[in-house]
Amino acid sequence: MRFVIIGGDAAGMSAASRAKRNSPELTVTVLEQTEDVSYSACGMPYNIAEAGRAMDDLVVRQAHVFREKQGIDLRTGHFVEEIDRNSNRVRGMNSAGEHFEIPYDRLLIATGASPLKPDLPGFETPGVMALKNLEDGRRIKDFMEMESVRKVVIIGMGYIALEMCEAMVARGIHVEMVKPSPPLLPWMNSNLAGVIREEIESHGVIIHPGQEIQSITREQESLKVICKDMILEGQMVLVAVGVKPNSEMADRAGLELGPGGSIAVGKDLRTSDEEIFAAGDCADAFHVVTGQKTWIPLALRANRAGWGVADNVTGKRVELEGIAGTAVFKVFDLQVARSGLSLAEAEKYGFDPVENTIKSRSRAHAHPGSSTLHIQMVGDRKSGRLLGAQMVGREGAAHRIDAIAVALHQKMTVEAFSQCDLAYAPPFGPVWDPMLTAANQLLKKM
Amino acid sequence: MRFVIIGGDAAGMSAASRAKRNSPELTVTVLEQTEDVSYSACGMPYNIAEAGRAMDDLVVRQAHVFREKQGIDLRTGHFVEEIDRNSNRVRGMNSAGEHFEIPYDRLLIATGASPLKPDLPGFETPGVMALKNLEDGRRIKDFMEMESVRKVVIIGMGYIALEMCEAMVARGIHVEMVKPSPPLLPWMNSNLAGVIREEIESHGVIIHPGQEIQSITREQESLKVICKDMILEGQMVLVAVGVKPNSEMADRAGLELGPGGSIAVGKDLRTSDEEIFAAGDCADAFHVVTGQKTWIPLALRANRAGWGVADNVTGKRVELEGIAGTAVFKVFDLQVARSGLSLAEAEKYGFDPVENTIKSRSRAHAHPGSSTLHIQMVGDRKSGRLLGAQMVGREGAAHRIDAIAVALHQKMTVEAFSQCDLAYAPPFGPVWDPMLTAANQLLKKM
Repeated sequence: MRFVIIGGDAAGMSAASRAKRNSPELTVTVLEQTEDVSYSACGMPYNIAEAGRAMDDLVVRQAHVFREKQGIDLRTGHFVEEIDRNSNRVRGMNSAGEHFEIPYDRLLIATGASPLKPDLPGFETPGVMALKNLEDGRRIKDFMEMESVRKVVIIGMGYIALEMCEAMVARGIHVEMVKPSPPLLPWMNSNLAGVIREEIESHGVIIHPGQEIQSITREQESLKVICKDMILEGQMVLVAVGVKPNSEMADRAGLELGPGGSIAVGKDLRTSDEEIFAAGDCADAFHVVTGQKTWIPLALRANRAGWGVADNVTGKRVELEGIAGTAVFKVFDLQVARSGLSLAEAEKYGFDPVENTIKSRSRAHAHPGSSTLHIQMVGDRKSGRLLGAQMVGREGAAHRIDAIAVALHQKMTVEAFSQCDLAYAPPFGPVWDPMLTAANQLLKKM
Repeated sequence: MRFVIIGGDAAGMSAASRAKRNSPELTVTVLEQTEDVSYSACGMPYNIAEAGRAMDDLVVRQAHVFREKQGIDLRTGHFVEEIDRNSNRVRGMNSAGEHFEIPYDRLLIATGASPLKPDLPGFETPGVMALKNLEDGRRIKDFMEMESVRKVVIIGMGYIALEMCEAMVARGIHVEMVKPSPPLLPWMNSNLAGVIREEIESHGVIIHPGQEIQSITREQESLKVICKDMILEGQMVLVAVGVKPNSEMADRAGLELGPGGSIAVGKDLRTSDEEIFAAGDCADAFHVVTGQKTWIPLALRANRAGWGVADNVTGKRVELEGIAGTAVFKVFDLQVARSGLSLAEAEKYGFDPVENTIKSRSRAHAHPGSSTLHIQMVGDRKSGRLLGAQMVGREGAAHRIDAIAVALHQKMTVEAFSQCDLAYAPPFGPVWDPMLTAANQLLKKM
């Protein structure tokens, strides 16, 4: 049996490795359009922050290991153009310009996602960059080393934009950030977003939310981002306004699409074609809170879905329950974490949500080094269920959110969560863990 | 109605405050034998670590606030000697030597726990100290400031012993630790205990587990701890060999006792007498993993049980589900956390337990500053249930354990836990959270 995988990133390589481990006799062919496989994409901003550090430090396992040690038929520089479901074949072209055609018994589409690029003049100008794959990372880093970059304009304020902002500041570069919609992080409670805004600004970064962007032009050494009310100038422009699933080929092949144009898959990771799976940033998932389909492209799901596909391809029946939308990132000295639904999302999905935010010390009364931990929590008035939480603080947010994630998987009520026996010691929090205080306060409102 | 509370620490004052908040017309009388109420007992080692810092920094709310602002009849220096269940009265003596007798409609016993003192010669010698209440803390700190303490012998190696060890080292004092039983932390997986041992020894502390202690003697300025095979010497000896519940008075009054001699209470915190409640370190609790009674005296339960009693006394019906035995402490630069059952405990309670330990990076591949996080996880072969976990590491253990605690409350299987959508970002962990890796590895053994 031949298992063909389109895309050699997290989902694709996880699936390939596990399929070979499960069934060594299986022929596993991976077609990857770039030359890079198996690297820590999320680590790129942190690598870029360190001048002189090789981008290839992020490679977890090199191509030859997959080929020689694991017996995977890994073909880099192979761009798939078409899935032919009638003949069970994929067709494309390799980097030498040669056409290829490969038959499959089972196919995995793991084509990932691509940065969105606004359809505006000047976004193709040299020096206007986006960050998705390792090649993008190298390009940004090389550009910074060759050109004298003293100032960067970042378009977008999502977590990649914020991580890149921090990386630039770490390299002594002045940053201005701009985006069209007014809220800093639209999914975030405004009190918590305010804390993040202060943190960013305290590092000398100037932010301009709510600025319509019109075009980019180059004048000598500098790029100008022309906005409705202002012109921002820098030697480099980073575009980080979100990503879109790479699902065009699946769409052309007649496969069903899900939210945001992602490829629709069942809990068994199968697309609308029994023999074709999809996993990773190009595919959708069930949300454990709503029970509905959602598209939240994140690394853990990609890896887990890759494993799930491999198991299903090799005869183990696996179904994935879904995701809680748990995410964490660092913005300078702040940890920002979320899991589950925001207030607006809860309303959209027909809940009767109540939101509350609390501030707590990060350490016990009188313990030195304490800072403030902000927690927002959303509950459903009808069912009493916990629907989501967001946290911002200098310490204690990044791992606490996992307790919320587990509670969401279990569809716990706020009341039941408030009764949990959480850990306490003075260096790590107050007696009543901030999450318990948040739950107790939210209960009063519900 | 008159609500009388014996003991003005965590459980007692929580109950008093909440009862008055629920029912301002209620007469609430608190009888506390010391002069201190409402302080952070767990913060004492950290306060002792800082020379010159006032012990009273640990007081969260002063007595006059309870009296004047909250209208609580708080009587310090009042030692209760007897509960008379026939006449619904408590009797005792105050610090002025006067007898008192107070009637109650509802009574809460919140007498806490006391340090165990080995019944061996010399443990009453001046300079031999134990740490339980604020007065003990002041005594230790005063002793250290008056005497020239260059070396301390700590008897015991539990978490209070270890926290005090760290405090002494922080003050430049040489520490030797000794205890009769061979394992460092008997409840802990030996691999993880080995990591802690290394950490302690790397700070110059000498430890002697498995040394039978025979007596303490004083010779001039120095105290000698005479053991079977050695004599340890210092200017101060700290005894931290565990605590026992202060349940003698409850026992004399004919109330039912539970594990470890603690006062037996139902989920509604009532003792075997409908009108008498018990809460805090003197009372038992249901364990959410075993469903059986247990005695694990910790601060969160004390506070929560205090609230529960207040609610039940004021007419709200409240039942507490129980505890998971979640605990965390710091040993120098290590975070040590646990929740649920150890392997031995799981065997004792009739499970068919399987244990596995893993080592994981605390941060993502190639992310700077990573250290090792050790996780032990116990599952039940029969039911598939997660039974407990222990973690040791320089970062990421203290708050991760809360996710385990929530899972234990929900009686999740290891399989279900392994499917949870936990958080990932390079500064905070690998893509597969160490807890997921631990669960995945444990599943293979089950």
